[in-house]
Amino acid sequence: MYQNLKSDVFEANLALARYGLVTLTWGNVSGVDRQRHCIAIKPSGVDYESMTPEDIVIVDMEGIVVEGHLRPSSDTPAHLELYKAFPAIGGIVHTHSMYATMFAQACREIPCFGTTHADHFFGPVPVTRFLTEIEVREGYERATGKLIVERFAGLDPESTPGVLVAGHAPFAWGKSAADAVENSLILERIAQMAYGSLQLNPELSAIPSYIQEKHYQRKHGPHAYYGQK
Amino acid sequence: MYQNLKSDVFEANLALARYGLVTLTWGNVSGVDRQRHCIAIKPSGVDYESMTPEDIVIVDMEGIVVEGHLRPSSDTPAHLELYKAFPAIGGIVHTHSMYATMFAQACREIPCFGTTHADHFFGPVPVTRFLTEIEVREGYERATGKLIVERFAGLDPESTPGVLVAGHAPFAWGKSAADAVENSLILERIAQMAYGSLQLNPELSAIPSYIQEKHYQRKHGPHAYYGQK
Amino acid sequence: MYQNLKSDVFEANLALARYGLVTLTWGNVSGVDRQRHCIAIKPSGVDYESMTPEDIVIVDMEGIVVEGHLRPSSDTPAHLELYKAFPAIGGIVHTHSMYATMFAQACREIPCFGTTHADHFFGPVPVTRFLTEIEVREGYERATGKLIVERFAGLDPESTPGVLVAGHAPFAWGKSAADAVENSLILERIAQMAYGSLQLNPELSAIPSYIQEKHYQRKHGPHAYYGQK
Amino acid sequence: MYQNLKSDVFEANLALARYGLVTLTWGNVSGVDRQRHCIAIKPSGVDYESMTPEDIVIVDMEGIVVEGHLRPSSDTPAHLELYKAFPAIGGIVHTHSMYATMFAQACREIPCFGTTHADHFFGPVPVTRFLTEIEVREGYERATGKLIVERFAGLDPESTPGVLVAGHAPFAWGKSAADAVENSLILERIAQMAYGSLQLNPELSAIPSYIQEKHYQRKHGPHAYYGQK
Repeated sequence: MYQNLKSDVFEANLALARYGLVTLTWGNVSGVDRQRHCIAIKPSGVDYESMTPEDIVIVDMEGIVVEGHLRPSSDTPAHLELYKAFPAIGGIVHTHSMYATMFAQACREIPCFGTTHADHFFGPVPVTRFLTEIEVREGYERATGKLIVERFAGLDPESTPGVLVAGHAPFAWGKSAADAVENSLILERIAQMAYGSLQLNPELSAIPSYIQEKHYQRKHGPHAYYGQK
Repeated sequence: MYQNLKSDVFEANLALARYGLVTLTWGNVSGVDRQRHCIAIKPSGVDYESMTPEDIVIVDMEGIVVEGHLRPSSDTPAHLELYKAFPAIGGIVHTHSMYATMFAQACREIPCFGTTHADHFFGPVPVTRFLTEIEVREGYERATGKLIVERFAGLDPESTPGVLVAGHAPFAWGKSAADAVENSLILERIAQMAYGSLQLNPELSAIPSYIQEKHYQRKHGPHAYYGQK
Repeated sequence: MYQNLKSDVFEANLALARYGLVTLTWGNVSGVDRQRHCIAIKPSGVDYESMTPEDIVIVDMEGIVVEGHLRPSSDTPAHLELYKAFPAIGGIVHTHSMYATMFAQACREIPCFGTTHADHFFGPVPVTRFLTEIEVREGYERATGKLIVERFAGLDPESTPGVLVAGHAPFAWGKSAADAVENSLILERIAQMAYGSLQLNPELSAIPSYIQEKHYQRKHGPHAYYGQK
Repeated sequence: MYQNLKSDVFEANLALARYGLVTLTWGNVSGVDRQRHCIAIKPSGVDYESMTPEDIVIVDMEGIVVEGHLRPSSDTPAHLELYKAFPAIGGIVHTHSMYATMFAQACREIPCFGTTHADHFFGPVPVTRFLTEIEVREGYERATGKLIVERFAGLDPESTPGVLVAGHAPFAWGKSAADAVENSLILERIAQMAYGSLQLNPELSAIPSYIQEKHYQRKHGPHAYYGQK
């Protein structure tokens, strides 16, 4: 019944590992079925090498397991909050990828230092605040999702398809599970580029806004002309 | 009719990916046929793994597709400007390779800090200015090509086979598509070496000009004695 | 007689190499049999590629070879000191892995800068003092083990499963040889993350203690809910 | 007649590439036959992938080709100077490996910051001065060899098996071609470790001399007890 969704999410999880974005089990991908009001997500703490499509867990929007013999990722409540708040997204990725995590730990946003960034993120990659002690106590993972949603007040999750959770690591999302994985890889690469550029020029500022606009629009705007579509 | 050119450009694109210089589809190689007044170039946004030689697009010097079923790289107008202005080059590569892009984003040229650099680039790797808002509006990719040509006033594109576009990424070129890929790899390595040397010594200056001269000439001068020819 | 222990330790040594944590022969894994009062350990200076399970050496708690045709790792006395002082551990790893060694050489502990760290180490990764000249002379490797034990006065080796030896490199441990290898990999990754975060923010301090507590407990506490058990 | 020497040097060149120490053709290994007064060395500018044992060139101590159909490495005169001045060495490696080259370009020696270094190099890895314009003109590669020999006045090439040539890159050597490759890899790793430790602590000084002494002697001294011999 959920074969296609499970298969997509399974393949997306494998792609995450193949791109070198995960160490051990530190990462998970989910995908949503908006019609059936459920998501498919990686099981908690399972190795990427031994995982099979049947291990992917189906969970409803309240976090109840609908199908699957394993426990879902402990980050499931965070994913659910994002799906509820961002109706246009179809897949979510959470990793502890190296350079994005360095920025998250340093509590620094990633300004748009170049066109690689501008091609995919419109404006800086934002960083959240820390959760308060009360928030941590009253449902940590759900609070992490709400924290991201709070940070996106005034931001468009489609043109800013990722975030850095302070003292933690990145989340990224996209139209599908596969698209979210791609955005997760892009976020890691622009983090590494920004890291190096800051070492070369600590006072560096963002590129002119008209170049940011141009690059984003040529890939994602109504008159996009990058790619084959 | 264009089989050899297509095949050369196809192989050069694969080499680019094999050398680790591209993430996703962020890179393209072209080659020129000076007799027939056309170039072969990677199709836009196509994965390196699924690409076949038949996907390579043949475009005339005005940018009109002559042969091929896909849309050419969106950077085609930049390539064409370079082929027109630099008559001795046979191939061009554009990537967002990591360390060269860090320098491009930081708007810093790469001084000749060692003989690895001197063996391949005579003098610093130059960096362009930013495009103006008007230039961006009136044909962004062609303007990028013109910007590089402008930066090479007084420079020899044969002894300086690459450039950093400010806030963007590197372009490199060479006698052929394969040669351009090699220069693209070399630019990435000397960028990484320069990055590290600057971390170890932020006040570092270029090596003496007589060593730069010696290294460049022993590989590229009239009495070159490096290699088997 | 020691087949299972040897096999576990052999596999753990191979995993260490596969994770990219060793150059040449710079690393070793041991495992303990608490009932039979002996450990299995990598032979000294033997390549990971040519090693077989039969090359693993069985040594008693005084360091006397009980079984095996090769000389045990020169670090054996350090391993033995740790097994004696830390009764809950079942495996030990010593490597010169890149980023953990950078911190060890810089004589800096690794503060808890993020949840990747908090998930696995409760509090900072400690760094030892240097050995004195007398300690070095009177049995260097055993003194290294004692030095680590001294540093753990007031620390719990179960919630802090690793250490940096000043001017040397990391040791890590765990419930088994395989678990120790995993902690060794984790230590390397959190060292790299901390390194980068410090480059981005040299004044960075640890994340709030209630987040550290939460992350550690959700994986290792009595009410742990990460993973499948 | 030179089959064994050629085969050893061929294998050592392949190992150099396998260890990731070379880009393109930027590296070469030689080995000496002290009885027959000749060396075997990589041909100039030949790819590691296409090279065969028959491509290795045999050259006498004056640099005259004795056997082989290709031109020897352009660095041959530098190798010959080292073999003449350092009678105990059997193999030499020259690379432009990344981190060692960063230090060479920054004209900084590598102090002994840890036991990884102390296990293999007794004291700092020295850096030469720049060649003068006259030296460059009157036989550049031979002058590079002489420069290294000059730098080793008062140093023992057996306990310091490598050097950084200012503004250029490292040379390493050893008892055989294979041993020289291993020292070349070790030099690269200790350069990377030192690079990172200096980023973490720019004022870092060398580890105590009694630890340096201990580590070097336990591997290389008359009472060495590391390894199986």
